[in-house]
Amino acid sequence: MKAYIESNKERFFEELFSILRIPSISARPEHKDDMVRCAKRLCQLLLEAGADKADLYPTAGNPVVYGEKIIDPSLKTVLVYGHYDVQPPEPLEKWNSDPFEPEIHDGAIWGRGANDDKGQLFMHIKAFEFLTRTSALKHNVKFIFEGEEEIGSPSLPEWVREHREMLAADVVLVSDTTMISDKVPSINCGMRGLSYLEVCVKGPNKDLHSGHYGGAVANPINVLCEMIASLIDADGRVTVPGFYDKVVELSADDRAQLARAPFDLEEYKEFLDVKDLRGEKGYTTLERTGIRPCLDVCGIWGGYTGQGAKTVLPSEAHAKISMRLVPDQKSSEITRLFAEHFKSIAPDCVKVEVTPCEGGDGFLIPISSDAYKAASMAMGEVYGIEPVPSRGGGSIAVLAEFQKILGIDPLLMGFGLERDTIHSPNESYLLSQFFRGMEAIALFYRYY
Amino acid sequence: MKAYIESNKERFFEELFSILRIPSISARPEHKDDMVRCAKRLCQLLLEAGADKADLYPTAGNPVVYGEKIIDPSLKTVLVYGHYDVQPPEPLEKWNSDPFEPEIHDGAIWGRGANDDKGQLFMHIKAFEFLTRTSALKHNVKFIFEGEEEIGSPSLPEWVREHREMLAADVVLVSDTTMISDKVPSINCGMRGLSYLEVCVKGPNKDLHSGHYGGAVANPINVLCEMIASLIDADGRVTVPGFYDKVVELSADDRAQLARAPFDLEEYKEFLDVKDLRGEKGYTTLERTGIRPCLDVCGIWGGYTGQGAKTVLPSEAHAKISMRLVPDQKSSEITRLFAEHFKSIAPDCVKVEVTPCEGGDGFLIPISSDAYKAASMAMGEVYGIEPVPSRGGGSIAVLAEFQKILGIDPLLMGFGLERDTIHSPNESYLLSQFFRGMEAIALFYRYY
Repeated sequence: MKAYIESNKERFFEELFSILRIPSISARPEHKDDMVRCAKRLCQLLLEAGADKADLYPTAGNPVVYGEKIIDPSLKTVLVYGHYDVQPPEPLEKWNSDPFEPEIHDGAIWGRGANDDKGQLFMHIKAFEFLTRTSALKHNVKFIFEGEEEIGSPSLPEWVREHREMLAADVVLVSDTTMISDKVPSINCGMRGLSYLEVCVKGPNKDLHSGHYGGAVANPINVLCEMIASLIDADGRVTVPGFYDKVVELSADDRAQLARAPFDLEEYKEFLDVKDLRGEKGYTTLERTGIRPCLDVCGIWGGYTGQGAKTVLPSEAHAKISMRLVPDQKSSEITRLFAEHFKSIAPDCVKVEVTPCEGGDGFLIPISSDAYKAASMAMGEVYGIEPVPSRGGGSIAVLAEFQKILGIDPLLMGFGLERDTIHSPNESYLLSQFFRGMEAIALFYRYY
Repeated sequence: MKAYIESNKERFFEELFSILRIPSISARPEHKDDMVRCAKRLCQLLLEAGADKADLYPTAGNPVVYGEKIIDPSLKTVLVYGHYDVQPPEPLEKWNSDPFEPEIHDGAIWGRGANDDKGQLFMHIKAFEFLTRTSALKHNVKFIFEGEEEIGSPSLPEWVREHREMLAADVVLVSDTTMISDKVPSINCGMRGLSYLEVCVKGPNKDLHSGHYGGAVANPINVLCEMIASLIDADGRVTVPGFYDKVVELSADDRAQLARAPFDLEEYKEFLDVKDLRGEKGYTTLERTGIRPCLDVCGIWGGYTGQGAKTVLPSEAHAKISMRLVPDQKSSEITRLFAEHFKSIAPDCVKVEVTPCEGGDGFLIPISSDAYKAASMAMGEVYGIEPVPSRGGGSIAVLAEFQKILGIDPLLMGFGLERDTIHSPNESYLLSQFFRGMEAIALFYRYY
């Protein structure tokens, strides 16, 4: 694969850039056409790479791209999952280049989606192309690329249920996560679930003069702040009643296993430029992001946010709240518990609205499977060191659904690094990871 | 004056509209030219009304308009104060008409500044015009209109100090406040001071993926909410150490006097459409806005505030915080105490920045003065009922400075009503108040 990459590198970049340039932002309805454009381009790339067929499938939301090459029904089948939608690029002023005009410099590809997930799914198309062109393919391969991962995959489960037979496979292969570092390869054996809601606190029916009313009328921003502050206690635990009821507590042994992953606290703090960390009492930093749930405000707004001083007691305040969940917390149940709790703690001086936005369950993957072993061998060969099993803090909502609907475990061969700052300005993807990822994927097929 | 208004009404509207159309928003540097344009137009109006002279005076900020008519140095001198700058019009989507294209309907003038303070200062120009044209003027009159009231009058005190002799007068006459209702005229005998700051809580040096870091890295929005929540205790008292040290506690007698003002709690709640009110324990609603200080968040922002769900752990969160002060709290001292306290409560996991924006001291006005008596007679005659002395919750920072620098007490003949929703969308000014105000001002000169 190495030589193949070397002689086709420029074409690979051109093809990848052609999808990175499309602003396929699923959170924004005005990008509907971009979603379709991106999906069509992926079909084209699959066909060019050797797929027997590749099509757009309509859903209630953005279309699903499905392609396949069936060489022999008796052979093992790999179902490759990826997503072609990306996060909104905001705040735009923090980007050093146009998020949708990719660039290569400093040993990396820069742009929205360079890693998450266009860059990573592209590696699978090229590894597949290499195997077909060199007649080395000895598996059936199916590709499913969705356009709603960043908004919680609202349409995919239904579509998967409807196409259960077409999607039958032995493993769901996914590159949409990070590894510990490029010196310490790792394979995710679990991810967190998500429950994401928007809340609105309403006070008086109009914005008021803060002099005439301040002190006598409850200020929705102050009330929202109090309510948010009360959601996490002094031990860093979420106060929503029932929140921890289903959380699987790991054994001392399991925790010791996870603690084997190399982690440098000082380096971590330095990377983030923070003096101190904060989280749930009694757990390490890696445990806090891997095996424990949490609650974060992803956005807040209300009142006057322009330049200068406007003395207003606003009529409304808003926040977007995300909870990361662990097995066996059910996203739908946590969303319900949160909504009930948030309404119950609202004082009489305000009205509260809670709108669920997105959700998905967390999951665990057994490390004893053939697929895990093949991935471990492949990555070990490329990186010269056996990968560590790890736990990802992020969420790919739909993978738990694959487990439930198709009965297939996912395998997470992720080649992202924390330095890629996905979801943030200046997303990038290291060229070395891009190339090694393709090699490792090709080797996975050899060992699986 | 009544007949004069009747026969000149259309011209009055045209002249007023010519200043309402100018977006003289002092909080926005891009409106510098509009400030000058508005100030020039006011000079013109003063000269046309009969002033001997009227000029723009440069300051470090927006120009001051000063005009005068000195008929006899041995007579009493009235110094009329007003401001030609306005609050930003946002949120624009809540206006029923263009904020800078005034309209008359439903018995009122609609537009930004219709009341605060262009509408109210205009009444003084017209009452003066009436007196000069009917040869009824028996006072020297000086006008000072500033362009920075809504941002805390940063330049005016310096300018007043420099022009102390020119500004010598017996009373500062101001119409920039409200009365209790158009059935219950009142004269403000005190206003609150203001301390306005912007705070920023900084966490990690970049926006982070809330899945990868959530639970382990302090979220600046959550921290800001906790810090804000901690600023007010369960009794509705501000927790900044030293905040209440200088607050003058009113005697039971004084409180009884203020309690005479008619006030209907149910009507008040209905007007605001709130089920419950909230404020400092042990005080009534009118006391909470009149004689007690308070703290309000006027604006808050951070993270993703667009449509849909973006899972981000943001690097920063911001808020604008206003404190209304009462005698003898000094604005500069409260600003310092707040900044010290806010920094002291910041946990080690974040950095905090505090930027003072605006401030001014509160003040009290004796009701035994000749000016108060003249105003009381004038308003009593126009409204057919003796006005009630009241306390205004808002702030006109510079009036305390007039007291200090010039040794002149202000007199607050305000004709606004709460229904005018100044500082908010759809600001308006009742025509009946506009006309009665002019009458009352003209009568004030007769009785003073």
